[in-house]
Amino acid sequence: MASLIVPDSIPSVAEDIEQLHKAFSGWGTNEDLIISILAHRNAEQRKHIRQAYAETYGEDLLHSLEKELSSDFERIVLLWTLEPAERDAVLLNESTKRWTSSSQVILEIACTRSSHALLSAKQAYHARFKKSLEEDVASLITGDFRKLLVPLVSTYRYEGPEVNTTLAKREAKILHEHISAKEYNHDEIIRILTTRSKTQLFATFNQYNNEFGNAITKDLKADADDDFLKTLRSVIKCLVTPEKYFEKVLRSAINKTGTDEWALTRVVATRVEVDMNVIKEEYYRRNTVQLDHAIKGDTSGDYEEMLVALIGA
Amino acid sequence: MASLIVPDSIPSVAEDIEQLHKAFSGWGTNEDLIISILAHRNAEQRKHIRQAYAETYGEDLLHSLEKELSSDFERIVLLWTLEPAERDAVLLNESTKRWTSSSQVILEIACTRSSHALLSAKQAYHARFKKSLEEDVASLITGDFRKLLVPLVSTYRYEGPEVNTTLAKREAKILHEHISAKEYNHDEIIRILTTRSKTQLFATFNQYNNEFGNAITKDLKADADDDFLKTLRSVIKCLVTPEKYFEKVLRSAINKTGTDEWALTRVVATRVEVDMNVIKEEYYRRNTVQLDHAIKGDTSGDYEEMLVALIGA
Repeated sequence: MASLIVPDSIPSVAEDIEQLHKAFSGWGTNEDLIISILAHRNAEQRKHIRQAYAETYGEDLLHSLEKELSSDFERIVLLWTLEPAERDAVLLNESTKRWTSSSQVILEIACTRSSHALLSAKQAYHARFKKSLEEDVASLITGDFRKLLVPLVSTYRYEGPEVNTTLAKREAKILHEHISAKEYNHDEIIRILTTRSKTQLFATFNQYNNEFGNAITKDLKADADDDFLKTLRSVIKCLVTPEKYFEKVLRSAINKTGTDEWALTRVVATRVEVDMNVIKEEYYRRNTVQLDHAIKGDTSGDYEEMLVALIGA
Repeated sequence: MASLIVPDSIPSVAEDIEQLHKAFSGWGTNEDLIISILAHRNAEQRKHIRQAYAETYGEDLLHSLEKELSSDFERIVLLWTLEPAERDAVLLNESTKRWTSSSQVILEIACTRSSHALLSAKQAYHARFKKSLEEDVASLITGDFRKLLVPLVSTYRYEGPEVNTTLAKREAKILHEHISAKEYNHDEIIRILTTRSKTQLFATFNQYNNEFGNAITKDLKADADDDFLKTLRSVIKCLVTPEKYFEKVLRSAINKTGTDEWALTRVVATRVEVDMNVIKEEYYRRNTVQLDHAIKGDTSGDYEEMLVALIGA
């Protein structure tokens, strides 16, 4: 499902770092060379490159890249080069500090990662920021959003295949009761969304649909402009149909006047090694245009080249 | 700080399991033999014994022990023989199912374990019960206790040495404001207790004491019989002075008419390999009687022998 293309035969790590070092030397920077290497190495390979680069040249590769690159191209290369857990930690820290009620990054990371990947991100957060994700989310965000986001980032969900049908029925009913009463911030809605396994929630939302005639996300559309309702809908989509959630983020980012590079960069950097091919299929199904064409039409230069190389045109 | 005594030279695992198997055979059970082996092996050694026993005799050692032993002696031997993470998972599951407002086991495990040990317990909970600790606590406990206990078991606390003094001052003030207003279940009290690192909380409680003239636990004694206040005091003690918390649990268990074997067994089984020697010192300081003497005076038979062997008389 990953879109990353790693050539069958790749140069040694020593050759890769020599080429990268060369790309930074002399007049100007050789961006094409940087893309041709980094956009075609997987997380493990990039990790080795970063280690060997630091040992050989006495500088973190990320610092060299930061000095040489700029703007959106810099951001995609830096985010991509980071290890997945560290990248999530950086995104979470940024999003916590600059949080607004329309920001979706925290819930996106909390709900689309596996329990193990979310835990790894929290460990990377400790190591890098000398505090916990939980305390930052809890102290920087307030009100209903805090009530929802703190348990979302804290929980360590069960991931087994077991489904309790009786429980799914009971909790579909609880959700429906509170949604019908417009009690969207009710403790029980938050408890169910933040603690049950994704498999169990899938059954609960199906049950909701069958029993009450509407998809739960549709019943949560009472007020399309309400950021809390929008957040609840995104949580549900991230938990059970992440590819649809990401397709929508990409669509909005590309269709927006001026393009939302921040969102485009984040989704590409975080999904290329996970499920980008599924997201691409979903994008085509929904827009009848290929994602790489849409991106080419909306971006330019090295940034465009890097994105297209990563999503595997 | 652990009280466990493992002889310098111990028999091979093969000899240990042969002896254990012999202890279960023929007329009656040889309890002394069981104690002489299991009470003097560390977690790693017990794990190997359990594995080898299952491979050789086709039965889980715990099942054999369950069939042969009974009552309090059975419980201490079974809990002790489990791996620490699995033992915590079993205790947490029991406590969640039979939870009452005076029950302290959930907060005790959440607050006295390291972040890694709590995580391991949650992973063992997934493996054994096919669901998460968070969902059980959230669905079986209600009201203010749920509001406090769910984040307590969910959080992955930072464990570095950093202290932010400005933050400690600010949060000591927040705690004092809400405690003075008797808003003991306030979101901010719960946020601070459930997300900050233990080192940071230590500084915050010191600041509270210096600034407002009373230990925070003293200010939380407004109503000695209120279970929620008692829970908050226990949370604070478990976070910053676990040895005092455990000393008190042992003292209450032993001084109670009839002895609270449930609590005595739990504390011995879970602390022997961690900090039992510190707890023993604290017990002597507080009661001017050695813990092993107090236990001998209050228990009998194989149960007494096992406890005394574990706490290293």
